[in-house]
Amino acid sequence: MQYGYMGSYVSINLTKEEVSFQSFSDEVLRKYIGGTGLGTKILFDETDGNTDPLGPENLLIFNAGPLVGTKAPNFGRYHVVTKSPLTGKYAEANSGGKFGPALRKAGYDGIIITGKAKRPVYLSLDNGKVELSSADHLWGKDTYEVGDWMKENHGKSSVCCCIGPAGERLSKIAGIMNDGRDGRAAARCGVGAVMGSKNLKAIVAKGNMEVPLFSKDEFNATSKEWSVKISQSVGNDILGLYGSSCGLEGTEVLGDIPIKNWGAGNFEGAKKISGPVMAETILTKRYYCGQCVIGCGRVVEVKEGKYLLEEGAGPEYETLGVFGANLLIDDLSAIATFNELCNRYGLDTISAGCTISFAIEAFEKGLLTKEQLGGLELHWGDPDCVIELIHKIAKREDFGFWLAEGSKIASEKLGGIAPQLAVHVRGLEFPAHDPRGANGLALQYITSPRGACHLSSFTHDFEYGGGGPMLNFPENAFDRFGYEGKGAFVSQYQDLMALFDSLTGCKFVLFGFEGKPLEKIKMFLDLATGWNISEEELMETGERIMNLKHLYNLKCGWTAEEAKLPYKMFGITRGTGGAADNIPNAGLMLTQYNKFRGRDVHGIPSGDTLRRLGLEKEGLGLI
Amino acid sequence: MQYGYMGSYVSINLTKEEVSFQSFSDEVLRKYIGGTGLGTKILFDETDGNTDPLGPENLLIFNAGPLVGTKAPNFGRYHVVTKSPLTGKYAEANSGGKFGPALRKAGYDGIIITGKAKRPVYLSLDNGKVELSSADHLWGKDTYEVGDWMKENHGKSSVCCCIGPAGERLSKIAGIMNDGRDGRAAARCGVGAVMGSKNLKAIVAKGNMEVPLFSKDEFNATSKEWSVKISQSVGNDILGLYGSSCGLEGTEVLGDIPIKNWGAGNFEGAKKISGPVMAETILTKRYYCGQCVIGCGRVVEVKEGKYLLEEGAGPEYETLGVFGANLLIDDLSAIATFNELCNRYGLDTISAGCTISFAIEAFEKGLLTKEQLGGLELHWGDPDCVIELIHKIAKREDFGFWLAEGSKIASEKLGGIAPQLAVHVRGLEFPAHDPRGANGLALQYITSPRGACHLSSFTHDFEYGGGGPMLNFPENAFDRFGYEGKGAFVSQYQDLMALFDSLTGCKFVLFGFEGKPLEKIKMFLDLATGWNISEEELMETGERIMNLKHLYNLKCGWTAEEAKLPYKMFGITRGTGGAADNIPNAGLMLTQYNKFRGRDVHGIPSGDTLRRLGLEKEGLGLI
Repeated sequence: MQYGYMGSYVSINLTKEEVSFQSFSDEVLRKYIGGTGLGTKILFDETDGNTDPLGPENLLIFNAGPLVGTKAPNFGRYHVVTKSPLTGKYAEANSGGKFGPALRKAGYDGIIITGKAKRPVYLSLDNGKVELSSADHLWGKDTYEVGDWMKENHGKSSVCCCIGPAGERLSKIAGIMNDGRDGRAAARCGVGAVMGSKNLKAIVAKGNMEVPLFSKDEFNATSKEWSVKISQSVGNDILGLYGSSCGLEGTEVLGDIPIKNWGAGNFEGAKKISGPVMAETILTKRYYCGQCVIGCGRVVEVKEGKYLLEEGAGPEYETLGVFGANLLIDDLSAIATFNELCNRYGLDTISAGCTISFAIEAFEKGLLTKEQLGGLELHWGDPDCVIELIHKIAKREDFGFWLAEGSKIASEKLGGIAPQLAVHVRGLEFPAHDPRGANGLALQYITSPRGACHLSSFTHDFEYGGGGPMLNFPENAFDRFGYEGKGAFVSQYQDLMALFDSLTGCKFVLFGFEGKPLEKIKMFLDLATGWNISEEELMETGERIMNLKHLYNLKCGWTAEEAKLPYKMFGITRGTGGAADNIPNAGLMLTQYNKFRGRDVHGIPSGDTLRRLGLEKEGLGLI
Repeated sequence: MQYGYMGSYVSINLTKEEVSFQSFSDEVLRKYIGGTGLGTKILFDETDGNTDPLGPENLLIFNAGPLVGTKAPNFGRYHVVTKSPLTGKYAEANSGGKFGPALRKAGYDGIIITGKAKRPVYLSLDNGKVELSSADHLWGKDTYEVGDWMKENHGKSSVCCCIGPAGERLSKIAGIMNDGRDGRAAARCGVGAVMGSKNLKAIVAKGNMEVPLFSKDEFNATSKEWSVKISQSVGNDILGLYGSSCGLEGTEVLGDIPIKNWGAGNFEGAKKISGPVMAETILTKRYYCGQCVIGCGRVVEVKEGKYLLEEGAGPEYETLGVFGANLLIDDLSAIATFNELCNRYGLDTISAGCTISFAIEAFEKGLLTKEQLGGLELHWGDPDCVIELIHKIAKREDFGFWLAEGSKIASEKLGGIAPQLAVHVRGLEFPAHDPRGANGLALQYITSPRGACHLSSFTHDFEYGGGGPMLNFPENAFDRFGYEGKGAFVSQYQDLMALFDSLTGCKFVLFGFEGKPLEKIKMFLDLATGWNISEEELMETGERIMNLKHLYNLKCGWTAEEAKLPYKMFGITRGTGGAADNIPNAGLMLTQYNKFRGRDVHGIPSGDTLRRLGLEKEGLGLI
């Protein structure tokens, strides 16, 4: 029996300029839901392990979910799934803004892009209608300009996602941006390079098609009720008031935020770049994504000083971490400028910031020279050289060519001890959370399907005492320097987050679910689909999705040798501060994790595990 | 002022068939003494980082020391120093027997071999006379046959070292054997392949030249006194009575001995292969190396059963570990047979045993097939397949060709998860001591200049409560699952062992020095050389030598990324037994170690450290 939600995808083969449509059975939808769940299923089924990430055969899959385009609070994101040119393995990247809802209102739950256009094109989806148009005139334009042009030419209600010059030049740290000047980004894993490799500059969506809901009235009433609750709790709390950097000053005290390319323990300047300071200085207003009732997004404007900025998207915590503390820069207006530059060029701010901190340290140690940088000198705490370097990376000028490949490849190009200065797992640069500050992060990073990712679990939030969604865990699992129970803790939160990402929910809404995220997810999902799904089945769905991502990586040649932290987390302590001496014993936690997950010691899921999750077919031939 | 000990080396360029002689200043000798100390100094000065280990430009250096050829108890070993074809870095391997004393009585403190002979040759040193002769008739002969031939043709007092067919075939796990049927081996790091690459089959030494001593009478009286003491203590204790495998049964209980390719925690059969059982069954007598008063060497004979063996050299603890427990074989006569086969072929039993355990597990997991092995099947606990595989490795038949390259290269050849099954550091296979049983071993293995080596420190002996030489350490450094003080503990024991290796002492004599090894070393060394060297200077000498080995590795491109344990020690626990759940936090100890050693976080010695040790020149250009 089919309800309204069908997983309706439009497939576009850019080589052949062919359009086709597909939907999924209720059985598949219930197993993978949407978002990264369904995206992974499509990627797994339709590519083999040898796919060249930048070849026409790679798939670039845009995924919404059953709650996107509805009134359900904070479930309006979209997720990109593809094979990563940065890691050579599974990639996911997601973004808020209004593109997700626009996609669904245009009539689709997702888009599958394959092939490569002969010339630059853009795709428009308008109330079911699919069209490819020339993007010759847009090629070379930055993402804000593309957003402006789309609004002018496709109407104010249209929303687009696109790549900037970095994606066009196949930078492996290029992301996909959406909502023009609102500066929203599905940034990680080099998804922008995949879009660039297909000569696809942009996708614009608009429409007023109705999103199918099983119990529309009840769904809308429930959405209203929870919109008020969340708005009044999380939205009125520090996250809403001060944005994702609300706790930045505390992360410095705890030893969480990276400082001086992950090489120091304290940074006095953290006090100057936190959310509350931003609210007092450059903030003009809060920004709300589609369906959002929290409003953690920042809109900023800089009217005085050296780094002037028109009103626009402000930096998130991660950006402030990697472009601020990690470069020893404490000037908010400078960081806001870096943020806008990266947004316009379509660069992942996390990877770009970490790659630049790597470059500065390599320069300081004499491994990277002024000559290699076309005369540019790099120094800690110097915003001007950072601005120059962002330009060089986006334009692939001088050694910027290699930095645009990400810190792993750039460090290997430099050789010597340079690879020890690059902080990534399997090529994906760390977000602004240090595993030396919370052991669970180490396990998250080495086991996350996309590389160093703090969003595929969320356990550090407990470890740092920040609360977060509740499952049944003993207190000792929360000891940030302890090891007891970490394997189970991280595994289960990964499953919960995989479920969340299949519903394309904003993770901050978790704080508004009164400690019962599964109950609330069930509530919205049942009302939307009529599935009457149990909490146990929901958790198993998350587990299935996590395992399918892992099976995809295995298909791409992943082995447990890759489950390791970079040298800085192995042989170097922070030295001072709240996590001065800790080096996480990642291997110890990995042994717990594999056991809990029903995998062998080499990370290969057992037959029992695969059968239990209904992944016999997907596991076949791998084990 | 020169005393008798001059560091008199004979240099032979095999390409040019040229012989030259050199000795060293008192200053250099006092800085490096002899053995691996002086050997490292020569290797460092006369090769650059790009030397091909199997090219004619590599040096193969045989080193005795100032106490070799004297009556000093247990100071009669010789050390081989070269660049390793197995690891591409610093190599040392040492052996007892009577070759060391014979070398000195032939008039030399060492031999430097360079170049490559056009045809197989052997070198003879006879009371100062140096001669190269054809070895065409010896090529292809095993090491026992070569020993026999030398005795027949150079006299019963002659002693030779040589390679077997494995070294001729450039197996990277081939060693250099000495003393013919006594089966003594300088085995590790592929030094046999270096000798093979030079077409040098053997070196035979004899003579009755007097070894210079500063205070001959007092030296001899002191030697006599301590010979009695050590003989009556260590010699009459379990080490003398039951050999190096005296405590094997205990190592199984503790979780030290490797079982099933480092994949299990317990092995019932350990009870059947221990030293006491050997003494009751196949042992015929004890063997004493030159100058030895302990007699831990085993002579065995097997008169009944499937694996008959004429009287000859018996297996040591390491061999029993890697060829017994690690293959699940509990038949002493079978292990004695493997030992003799390896000795005759000139294979390192440690690397061979570990490579075979790797092969069996790879076979079990379907990564290595019967077809690749010319029809041979591999099974745990099956001595017959092990015998066949030793033949295949030594002859480089079928996949034995790759196994002869050592487990690292063979595992990379097989791909997939195979590299996770190979247990080595930088290519050198582990000896039969598991770092999961004693954390200090993990630090030893990742920091030892030659790769996974338990002899370049000796801290596990404390960690397992076995006593050993004393320096001033707090009790908590001995906690085998603890971390406190491990960096200082391992560093200082490495320095002490480096000192010991520069004097080419047998490490078991440490147990006979009444807890004051430095005092006794000073005593013998002063009487031999007249140096009047302080204990502090001796420790600094050890530290200097350790650092020079490290500088050599840096010259060869070592970076701290190599300071890591193999996957089995990272992601897999022993599961049962005395070290069921431990995974050593190697990185944590490495941070202590680098700090204690005065190195930066990347393992690069500071200028202060180098100046303090008089290594400014050697460190130049590297840092």
